[in-house]
Order: sequence, then structure tokens, then C-alpha cells
Amino acid sequence: MGNKLGILIAGYGGAISSTVVAALDLMTRGLRPRLGMICETTEPSGITVGSKLGAPDLADTVISGWDVVPETIGEALVTHQVLTDTDIRDVSPATKGMRPILVPPKHTETTNGHYEFGGRIEKLRQDIRQFRAENQVDWVVVVNCMSTQPTPAWSANYESLEQFQTACAKGDPCVTPSMEYACAAILEGAGYVNFTPNLATIPALLELANQKRVPLAGKDGKTGQTLLKTALAPMFKLRGLQVQGWFSTNILGNRDGEALSEPDACNTKVTSKESCLDNILGYEVDDHQVYIHYYRPRRDNKEAWDNIDVDGFLGYSMQVKVNFLCRDSILAAPLILDLARLMAVSMREGEYGPLTQLSMFFKSPEVPVGTPVQHDLFVQRQIFEEWVEKCAAHAPVKVAV
Amino acid sequence: MGNKLGILIAGYGGAISSTVVAALDLMTRGLRPRLGMICETTEPSGITVGSKLGAPDLADTVISGWDVVPETIGEALVTHQVLTDTDIRDVSPATKGMRPILVPPKHTETTNGHYEFGGRIEKLRQDIRQFRAENQVDWVVVVNCMSTQPTPAWSANYESLEQFQTACAKGDPCVTPSMEYACAAILEGAGYVNFTPNLATIPALLELANQKRVPLAGKDGKTGQTLLKTALAPMFKLRGLQVQGWFSTNILGNRDGEALSEPDACNTKVTSKESCLDNILGYEVDDHQVYIHYYRPRRDNKEAWDNIDVDGFLGYSMQVKVNFLCRDSILAAPLILDLARLMAVSMREGEYGPLTQLSMFFKSPEVPVGTPVQHDLFVQRQIFEEWVEKCAAHAPVKVAV
Amino acid sequence: MGNKLGILIAGYGGAISSTVVAALDLMTRGLRPRLGMICETTEPSGITVGSKLGAPDLADTVISGWDVVPETIGEALVTHQVLTDTDIRDVSPATKGMRPILVPPKHTETTNGHYEFGGRIEKLRQDIRQFRAENQVDWVVVVNCMSTQPTPAWSANYESLEQFQTACAKGDPCVTPSMEYACAAILEGAGYVNFTPNLATIPALLELANQKRVPLAGKDGKTGQTLLKTALAPMFKLRGLQVQGWFSTNILGNRDGEALSEPDACNTKVTSKESCLDNILGYEVDDHQVYIHYYRPRRDNKEAWDNIDVDGFLGYSMQVKVNFLCRDSILAAPLILDLARLMAVSMREGEYGPLTQLSMFFKSPEVPVGTPVQHDLFVQRQIFEEWVEKCAAHAPVKVAV
Amino acid sequence: MGNKLGILIAGYGGAISSTVVAALDLMTRGLRPRLGMICETTEPSGITVGSKLGAPDLADTVISGWDVVPETIGEALVTHQVLTDTDIRDVSPATKGMRPILVPPKHTETTNGHYEFGGRIEKLRQDIRQFRAENQVDWVVVVNCMSTQPTPAWSANYESLEQFQTACAKGDPCVTPSMEYACAAILEGAGYVNFTPNLATIPALLELANQKRVPLAGKDGKTGQTLLKTALAPMFKLRGLQVQGWFSTNILGNRDGEALSEPDACNTKVTSKESCLDNILGYEVDDHQVYIHYYRPRRDNKEAWDNIDVDGFLGYSMQVKVNFLCRDSILAAPLILDLARLMAVSMREGEYGPLTQLSMFFKSPEVPVGTPVQHDLFVQRQIFEEWVEKCAAHAPVKVAV
Repeated sequence: MGNKLGILIAGYGGAISSTVVAALDLMTRGLRPRLGMICETTEPSGITVGSKLGAPDLADTVISGWDVVPETIGEALVTHQVLTDTDIRDVSPATKGMRPILVPPKHTETTNGHYEFGGRIEKLRQDIRQFRAENQVDWVVVVNCMSTQPTPAWSANYESLEQFQTACAKGDPCVTPSMEYACAAILEGAGYVNFTPNLATIPALLELANQKRVPLAGKDGKTGQTLLKTALAPMFKLRGLQVQGWFSTNILGNRDGEALSEPDACNTKVTSKESCLDNILGYEVDDHQVYIHYYRPRRDNKEAWDNIDVDGFLGYSMQVKVNFLCRDSILAAPLILDLARLMAVSMREGEYGPLTQLSMFFKSPEVPVGTPVQHDLFVQRQIFEEWVEKCAAHAPVKVAV
Repeated sequence: MGNKLGILIAGYGGAISSTVVAALDLMTRGLRPRLGMICETTEPSGITVGSKLGAPDLADTVISGWDVVPETIGEALVTHQVLTDTDIRDVSPATKGMRPILVPPKHTETTNGHYEFGGRIEKLRQDIRQFRAENQVDWVVVVNCMSTQPTPAWSANYESLEQFQTACAKGDPCVTPSMEYACAAILEGAGYVNFTPNLATIPALLELANQKRVPLAGKDGKTGQTLLKTALAPMFKLRGLQVQGWFSTNILGNRDGEALSEPDACNTKVTSKESCLDNILGYEVDDHQVYIHYYRPRRDNKEAWDNIDVDGFLGYSMQVKVNFLCRDSILAAPLILDLARLMAVSMREGEYGPLTQLSMFFKSPEVPVGTPVQHDLFVQRQIFEEWVEKCAAHAPVKVAV
Repeated sequence: MGNKLGILIAGYGGAISSTVVAALDLMTRGLRPRLGMICETTEPSGITVGSKLGAPDLADTVISGWDVVPETIGEALVTHQVLTDTDIRDVSPATKGMRPILVPPKHTETTNGHYEFGGRIEKLRQDIRQFRAENQVDWVVVVNCMSTQPTPAWSANYESLEQFQTACAKGDPCVTPSMEYACAAILEGAGYVNFTPNLATIPALLELANQKRVPLAGKDGKTGQTLLKTALAPMFKLRGLQVQGWFSTNILGNRDGEALSEPDACNTKVTSKESCLDNILGYEVDDHQVYIHYYRPRRDNKEAWDNIDVDGFLGYSMQVKVNFLCRDSILAAPLILDLARLMAVSMREGEYGPLTQLSMFFKSPEVPVGTPVQHDLFVQRQIFEEWVEKCAAHAPVKVAV
Repeated sequence: MGNKLGILIAGYGGAISSTVVAALDLMTRGLRPRLGMICETTEPSGITVGSKLGAPDLADTVISGWDVVPETIGEALVTHQVLTDTDIRDVSPATKGMRPILVPPKHTETTNGHYEFGGRIEKLRQDIRQFRAENQVDWVVVVNCMSTQPTPAWSANYESLEQFQTACAKGDPCVTPSMEYACAAILEGAGYVNFTPNLATIPALLELANQKRVPLAGKDGKTGQTLLKTALAPMFKLRGLQVQGWFSTNILGNRDGEALSEPDACNTKVTSKESCLDNILGYEVDDHQVYIHYYRPRRDNKEAWDNIDVDGFLGYSMQVKVNFLCRDSILAAPLILDLARLMAVSMREGEYGPLTQLSMFFKSPEVPVGTPVQHDLFVQRQIFEEWVEKCAAHAPVKVAV
């Protein structure tokens, strides 16, 4: 059996997705080093985590995806300004010419006039089948990279698979684009990664994933400020320093930031960012505040500022302030490649349902019912490392060329 | 058998020590809550780590120590200005009146005219015996809290116990005060904690500790900037973010800062602070720089500023800046109480030699020959937690009162 | 003629006012140095600005004021926690026992259940007359230190004195408490300082001030972040560095912060804070954003974080980040004393209407119709210094004692 | 008479100089806007400061200079990495091909093996004459942009012109390269700008400048941290906030940073940076500390971190922290163009000796004997603006084309 991976991204022309596509081109052609990915970090033994696991190689990976506008990757790279002129220049013409599978926009409209595409489930299933056949891939992983959307009111149709299927059949508006992609992926036996904070893995779809034995991972990629928060909070916990308040503000100027300037969408995001702290500390922090502001001068170069007030010995107060000058898509894009490769290993291992071992990649980790959610980055690391050891035993032997 | 703990501090009148003594008074009299200590944090099961381990209670702890000046604790509290007027006022007159066991200053002189006390080993052993007898304690732990001193040139006398004993007998100047305290402690069966970066556990004394089956812990308490560094560096490692440079500067205005304005002493400290980064990351960071500056306006309220340059996906650079407004002695003092109590548990368990499980308390963790040194705060936590589970089984049953 | 000053503060029991009252007590009794006030800074010639101007001395100043709750100054000091225990202890019992002149609360209610007091104009005039007579003061200055309130919709009644008087007589709700204090002060020949961003000096009252020849100063004391902004923006201007964005966020946890958590009140404040930048730079900064957040752990110790993006030579971008750890009332209180003393000098000089020379004290400087508003701190300084030189010539000769 | 300007830069292949040359090319060919220069900022009246003054236009400016290595501008641009690839690409081939006038290195060697060029005075005079003749320029300005050098011990030869001439004739090593350039410029009637902290305008050369009626400006361009310091310190002064300490640290990774890693050179620089604070405040700040560290990851993108401790009303302490992420050469280069153009105006006005009105451009402003040195950025601005008004009256009338 082969080990070729196909990735299908919902939101193909977005900043993250176009960065992923360009980077795969640059790295596999040897023009840029393989940096910033867990699967490419080297273990003390000298091999990479990806090799140890027998994950598909980047050279054995193909990418496509869906979008509502027919922009090429080359055009998207220019629009989003994530990469430098030099990097864009070095991407191959073939890659720059790649276009999305078109889907019609759905009625979920954002304030700034962009349409989020919906697409019907049947159409998406056909797209997946065709992609799988044309590229002869062994594993398909669907990755949701759409913009943040308002969280829909809870619907009774989400509760059971039967009700949900009826709702789909009727075109009930409670079925959101994120759910459609998840549903199509599961029905086609493709792993599903929810990199957004959007609601997708409702009980009905969890039921379906268990039936079809398909693995799921989500939700909301843990990149900048929340990554830092889940590394620092365990330190305070370990030293018995009581967190009195944690004030987090973010400024960013890309399209994602613009989408978040809509209050309902922002609320979806902020809720996702806030859940981690109390979980790690074991008590409630009343003054945990998170803000996101659309601020154009910074473009894709997001900046986070955190102020943390802690009380130590005898109640004396201390402060930590963290200023993270990061790059939104540069932090997110490598996680897409890591997640897809790790999902392929999970599929090889026959795992299905929400994958606890991938918690460290997400702001709001989804786990099977009954499993405790872990936000502590280093507890998550421990779970991941144990899984790596388990899987390493089954890694396919690489035949020397 | 009882579970009463006696702590003897070298540098009794210093900022850390006087804070420890005052805090023990305030906490055991119920005037201040028991914050900022690992042993007093509550496990999900509802009991504290200290109780789980069966560590001596704070109420069963007595403290004394050595110094070269006969200042009372009350006077020291006023000198160091660590605690507020209100806190100092609430300390009991008995505690404020406590005085050190006097030791004559040794020829190790710091530039600012203070003398570091030396004391002869025999005298120190007598002091320990007398303290043990008068207070009827079950465990004695000697804690080295002296000022940072220049690192002596390596001496052949450090290599074997026999040579070292001859050097001691001859009054050879290669025997430093830190070694004398360690030696006296070991000979009296008292645990020894080296909270300073000073050289103490030379091969000769390791040999002696193994002979006498005495546990050791050190060195250099991990409090402010290094604590943060060993929490953040694992995060960069985990995400494959390559650290290009880490610039750390510190400003502090207490007596410790004054001592560190002597280049040789500062060198001892900086060396201790620098070792952690490459160990955690697994590669060498050329531009790791650490500075400490004596800056009076801040007094005991130390401040650290870190700038970290990392390269991520495709080599794009990002920056993290951390500003820690901490309090030197407030961070250090609770660790002294934790360490002494955990050492008592180790003694109960019959452990001896350098205690790997206490690595998370130190900037330069000392471990048995052959054991890898771990600087990653969360690997250290894992080792500590495994030890807690192991010891919990043997915790003395508390008889309900 | 004498030179005794009486200050009447609206919002007497607030954090700023109680700090002013306590500080005057401590400074005039020689228990604390006279720091942080312009009138007490020393000129190169060796005398203070206050002496040069012949301003009333602090020792010749008495304070009282209005509030809706009968709390004593001693109680207010404990409530607001601006001063240390030690400072509060040293305030004289007489000062601690001082109580406000009571006024009934007005219908302007804040969300958190506190009532802003209104008071009727006639009652306030009587209070001013009585205060003047009892204390035999030569100058009375009324200072508005109430909480920030929503800006009322513009009313035709504000346009002329006649209309406004009719509205007052009818008890029209368009007459706000801030206007009532201003009106009463003007009618009694007392200088009026508006230290809040509340609307007060409507055309009708400007007309009245001109008729009665009474000086006015306002509005909204320039203390923390805006002070910094009006010092830094001129630097960027001078170097031709184009400001692309200025992101300002504030966290504070005192009662003022709580009042500002009401959106309408916050809007009044933010509008006041935003006006300065474009005025100084001479062009519009699209991405100038100002936020204020109520964050309890910091109490009165306000913190501002600013991020500024500038484009320099050839369009290269640079960033300045400023973190101001300040104290809200400690910055504001000395300005109250300075303003009252400087108003007294203005009255001596026969000046009236809005005082341009006091622009440097305010976020939204009020000037006579036709005079350009200046926000640049150092243009404001120049105007102030020219005024000082002009007035110095008329300073009353101090007879040596 | 014409108004054509010739600039000759000592250190032609350095980061600042190559940026100046490339930028002049890009701006005069209309490829980049004229940003970041005082002469190009627009007055409220709608014309630029440069036009108001009748300063030579950038289009009427030619540049050359001296160096010890024959590198072209194109090569220097690649070496220093100040400009982006795109900007370098757009510089014309003619400009990229420009080479320095070669001078032999002098015995002043820096630790890292680079040689500072010395050049003999006669040779330099010939170079200036030839440059003036070939380019038919009306004004020549020599700008010293060499690396920072150790400050030489004071020599009796510096005291009078006669002694200095004898020393030059004898090849006395007390004559440094910076002095040679100054001497040659003065003798040729060319304005001399010392953009470095190096010692140049010794009494002998001041005497010579007065004799020859040549204007001088210096020394040490005020760009990043010191610029900020001289804007913020006046704010503290104005509000009576007492500066208790000012801790300034800098990290930079360009060749200038490398040169400053030599202690003696660094000392020259730090001394230049420290003088401003006490001058502005009018009292001595004991804890004013300035550090410069060579830190490679940042290359030319210098970063400054300042922590300021101030005491306000009643002695309460507050802190301001400023983090300036700037670009060393991008801040410095436009000042070179401004200074040369303003010097030309001074020459037209017949001014000579040290020019007080250019103080705002320098860390250590040089002024005529008896004139007070001003470091306050806004006092400097006032002096500059008065001079602009004075000169504007004599600006040559521009004949419309």
C-alpha cells in the first residue's frame, strides 16, 4: 500500500491556504528549508518526527481545495501579502496557475460583502471522489480554513444523525458550510480538520464519524497569543502564583482581522480563545479579557500584547507583559501540513472520532465524550509524545532507494 | 516517629532569609494565606501536594541560621524593604528579635566592603547539633542563601574526599564558605540545598554525601527570568520555531544586585543563567546574551526584559518580548520552604545524593553522574510529579485530631 | 489685598479630590515634599514658577466641595486606596474628619447604581458665598471632578444665555450637573476648571463668563496616555516620520474605570482622547484607535499600552511601543492644585473667558472663538511660558517676614 | 548664482552613505516619495520647509565620497542589507556602479580587522577641488560618516591652529582621520558635518573655521533612542515628575554595532548618548545607564528598550517603558540630506562656526563658545524655527518654468 497524501482545503484562496500551497512548492523543489513544522523537527535519535511515525512525506503530498472566487494561487499570494516578493517570484508557474474547485457562495454573508461559500454536500462528495481518483492518493484530508463565522443558535437538528439528514435534505439554514464540508468528508472516508472556531462537529456528525470510522481534529488552530498563554499559564500554576487578571489584546490587519471586526464573528473567536485559562489553572480568573482589533498598518503581521497580574508569596503582586510580533499565516500554515500528515498516520492506525493526541494544535481541543479536555501545552505534548511512541512501532519500513 | 523540620540558613540576615522567617511567622499564626508554594497548591483530589507527600507542615517547622553581623530579623526586614510596613508590623516581636548564630567573616571579600562569612567546619557541625537538640527536630536541612561569589579556579583538592579533607585541615583557601556549609551539613546528616550559583558540590563532597547517605539539591534557585525562559523555550521547540537570538537583561537594586556589580560574581551568575537554553532546544543559540545591571530605583523589585528572535515557516522572522516585573525575594523565599519540606520527604524515603526530582527549582540542576540534566520546565514537572506519586504511597497517615 | 485661595471641588469624595485634600494637609504640615506640581518646580533663577507668578501659596489655600454621599475624607481615602496606609495614617484627624457640602443626587444615573449629584444652581451659589465668607478667601475656584457622563444631545437651549436661563428655570433636563456648577461659579465670580470630559462651557455659559469677566479652563485633565501622545507626536512630525497607525489601550480598575465601562460615558472620554493626534500632525491618521477597559486587578494604578506604526525614509516602517505604568489620581491631583493657583493669577490679571495658556493641562483645550486649538505639548509649553513672563512683572512683592 | 549642492561623504561605502546615494537616485527619478526629511515636510502654508528656505533641491544635488575599499554602491547595498531586494533592484545601474575616491587606510585600526581610512589633508583638498570643478556645484558639504572610534587623549596640539599645523606637518598621530576631513573641508570652504561621535572640532579647527568663515555642524546624529529621550524628558520636566533612573539598552547587528563591541569605541558613543538627560532636567540623574550590544539577528534593524522610573506627587513612583523598533540607517540617511541642504542655506546666509540652529539633529550639539547647549528637542525646534523664519526672507525667488 502506498503512502500518498491528498489535502483539500475549504477556503483555498485565503491567506493560510495560499501560503500552504506556495510553501509546499518551494520546499519540495528544495528552494526553501523545511522549517517550523513538528513533523520536520529532529529527534535526539537523528530522525524527524514525521519519519519516525511513517507519515507521508511532503514530496508525496498534493493539495487542492474549494473557493467561491476563481482566483489563482498566484493572484491570492499577491492579494494577501504574506510572502515576500522574492518568495512569490520563486514559486513555480504551475503552482501559481492553480485554481480552486468552484463552489457557489452560501447565504452566510459577512459584513464586508465577501460571501462565504456553502456548496451542497453531494457536490462536495463528488469533488472529493474526483480528487482522490485523479491524484491516486492513499489518504485524503479535508481542512476547513474558512473565515470565522457567527456561531449559529443551537438546533435540535444537530442532536441526531437522522434529524440532521432530514435538515440537509430540506435545505434547512441550520446546516452551515462548515458542517457541509465535515459531512462530505466523513461520508467519503476523508479525515476532517477544523482549523477554524466555527461550529462543525455536532453530535450528529460525531455519530456519523464513528459509523464511518473517520478521524476528526479540531478546532481553531492554536498559533499566537493562545499558544503563549497555554505555555505560560502552566508555569504560574506550577509555582503557585495566583493569576488575578489576564488582559489580552490583538491587532491585525488582514482579511481575517476584517472579518473579526463583525461583532458576532469576533464573539465566536474570543470565546474560543478564552476557554483555556481556567482549564489550566483549575480556578476561575474573573479578569480574563481578550480583545481583537482590526488595525490595518500591521497587515498579516499580527501583534499580541498580554498583561498578566499574579499574586505570589504573602499576596505580593507581580506583572508579566508579553508582546508577540508574529505573522498570522506563517504560524498557521505549517500546522495545516503537520495536521494532514498526522491525520494520515491516524487513518493508517485505524483511529477515528476526535483525536485527543492532536489537542496541542488547537485553541478548543475536541476529544471523545468522557475524555478530559487538556489546554496545558505541556500536558498536550506528553499525550502527543506517547502517541508518537505508540505509532512509531507500526511505521512502514522505508525501502532504501 | 515525628515529622518536625528544622531549617538552618547560611546568610540568615539576607533579604531572602529574613523574608522566609517573617513569612513563616505570619502564615503559621494565620495572619497571611499560604500562597506561592508548590507544597500548598491543591491537587484536583482536594488535598495539597504537601499533605499528599506527608511533608512536614509549616506549623512543625523551625528556622535559624548563620550570619556575620548580629542584626535581628526585625532589623533585617527594615534594611531590605522587601515587605510592606504593614506586614513588618504584624510579625511577632519574638520573631523580630531573632538573631543569627554568629560566624566570623572569611577572607572572601566582596568589592563593596561586606564580608562573606566563612566559619570553620567543626564550629558549624556543633551549631547544627545544638540546633537539632534544642528544637527536637526530626529533619534538619541546611540552605545556602549567601551572596553570589566569584567561582574559584578548579583545584585538584576537589577531586577526592581524602584530598579535600587534607585541604580543610590545612586551611587551604580553595575551601570556600559554600563548601564548608555543605561539608558540615553532610557530616551531620542534614540535607543540603544550594540556592546560590556558588560552587559547592565538588566530587569530594558528592563522595561524602553518598557515604553518609545525605540528599543534596541545587543549584541556584530558578525564579524570574530563567523560570520564564525554561517555560517559553519548550514552546518554541515544540512548534519548530528556530531561536536565532535571545537577549536578556535584568535590572535590580537590592544588595544582591550590588554584589553582582562585581564582574567576577556576575560572571558566576550569568554562566548559571545561560546554560539552560541550548539544553532545551537541542542546538546552540549563538546570540544568547544575558546581562544583570545594578539599578537602584527598583530596589528588591527586579525587572527582566527579554527579546527573542525566532525563525518560523519558510524562514520568516518573528519576535517575542517579555517584560517581567517581579520581586526577587518574594519569588525566592517560598521556594526555600518548599525545598526544605521536600528534602525532608526525601530523607524519609532514604534518598541521597543529588535529587533529580527537584530540578525544576534550579537554574543549574544538579543530578547524579550519568543522569541527563533537564532544563525544560515541563520535563522537570513530569519528573517531579512521578516522584510525588511514588512518595505519596509512603506518606505517614495523619491521625485525625 | 490678600492672596488667599479657596478651592471648591464638585465630586469631593472621589479619588482625585480626596487625594488633593490629604496631600495639601501633608505638604503644608511639612510631612511630604512638594513634588509633581508645575508651580513648585524651580526655574534656573532659583525660584519656583509659583513664586515668580505670585500665585497663592499652598499654605494659603483651603479646600471644600460637594458630594451626594456624606462620607468623610478619611473614609474616602480608605475607599479609593490611592495612598498607602502610611500616608493615610499621617493625615491629620481634622482633615480626615472633613465632610462634603451635601447636594441631592440628580437624575443622571450611571449604570452601576451610583448617582451623580446635580444640585440646583441657587443652592450652589449660596454654598460658594458661604465658603468665601467663612474662609475669608480672596479667590475662589470651582473645580469639576465628577465622573465622566454621557454627552447629552445638543440642545437649542445651549445657544444663548437667555434660552439657557429659561431652561434652568423650567428644570429642563438638558441642564446637566456640570453646567449647573459652571453656571453657579460664574455667577459668583469664581474661576471654573472643568477637569472632566463632560460638556459644560456651552455658548450660553461662555457669554455669561464674558459678561461676568470670569476665567474658565478645560477640559479633561491631560495626565497619562494623552500626555505621552502629545509629547511623542511632535517628535514624529519634526522628523517627517509619517504616522500610519496609533493603537492605544488602557486598563484601569478604579471607580472611574467602572463608570467608563458604560459605553456612552466611555464614548465621551474616548472622543476627548482622540482629538489630539490629527491636530498635532497636520494630517488624518485613519488607524488611530483608543480603548479603555475596566480591569480590576490594577485598581487606581492605570496602565496604558501604545503601539505606533510610522513610515520613514523611502517608506520603511518602524514601530514604537510605550507602556506607561502610572497612577491615575497621583497624576491628576497635583494638576488640580496647579490649576487653581494659576486661575487665581489669571483673576488677579483680570483675564476672563477660556484661558489658552492653560491648554497644556487638558486633553481637549478650550480656547476663545477664533484662537487655534493647540495639542502639541511643547507649543502649549511655549504659550504657557510666555504668559508666565508676562504675569511675572505684576507679581505682588513678597514682604520678607 | 546657482544653487547646486555637492555632498562628499567620508565612509562612502558604509550603510548610511550607500542608503543616501541609492535613495537620492530613487527619489529624484520619481520612483519613491520624498519621506522622512525635514526639508520635505509641508508647512501649513502649503510649501515645504526646503522651498521656504530656498535650499538646493534634491534634483540639484550630487554625491560622492571617500573610502578605503573600492566597493561600488551596488555592492555596498547588498553588503549592508538596509534596503529590500526590490528597492535595490530599482536603483539605476549608473548609481550602482559608483565607486569611492580611494584613500589609504590609516593606522587607526578597529578590533575586527577593518581599517579606518585616514588620508592626508593635501590629498583630500585636491579631491574636494576636483569634485567641485567636475560637478560645477555652488556649495560643497563634507559629511563625516565613518565608524565610531576611540576618543584620543587630549593633546596640546589641539589648542591652537599653529600647533595643530605643525603636528599635521610632522604626521603626529594625534591628528585623527576625523580631524583631517574637517581640516581639508574648512580649507576648501566646504561646510563640515560631523555625523559621528568622533572628536573633530578641536579649538585649532574652530579657529580655522572662523578665519575661513566656514560653517560646522555636529556631532553624532540624533536618531533612535536619544531622539526619544530628548522628547520624553521635557515632558517629565514640565509635569514636575522627578526622574529617579533611566535605563537604556540597545541591540543592533550591523557593522556599526560590531565596531561598538570594542569597549573604547563604545565608550565614545555612550558618552555622547548620556550627556542629554541632566541638561534637559536641570538636575543629575544618578541612575542613568546606557548600553549598546552587538546582537546579530537584528542586523540593521536596531532596537532600543528604555525603562524610566519617575517619582510624582507625594513621592509615588511610576514607570514608563519604551520599545523602539527602528532602522538605524533609515533614520540616519535622511538627516544627511537635510543637513547638507541646510548647510548650503547657512553658507548662502554667510553664517560660519558651529551652527546652533542645527542642534536638533545631534546627540551632542556643538555651539559657539558662550552659547548654552540645548538638548531639549522642543527648545531645539524653537531655535530651528526662528532661524527658518529669518532665512525665509532671503530665499532666492524661484523662476517659474
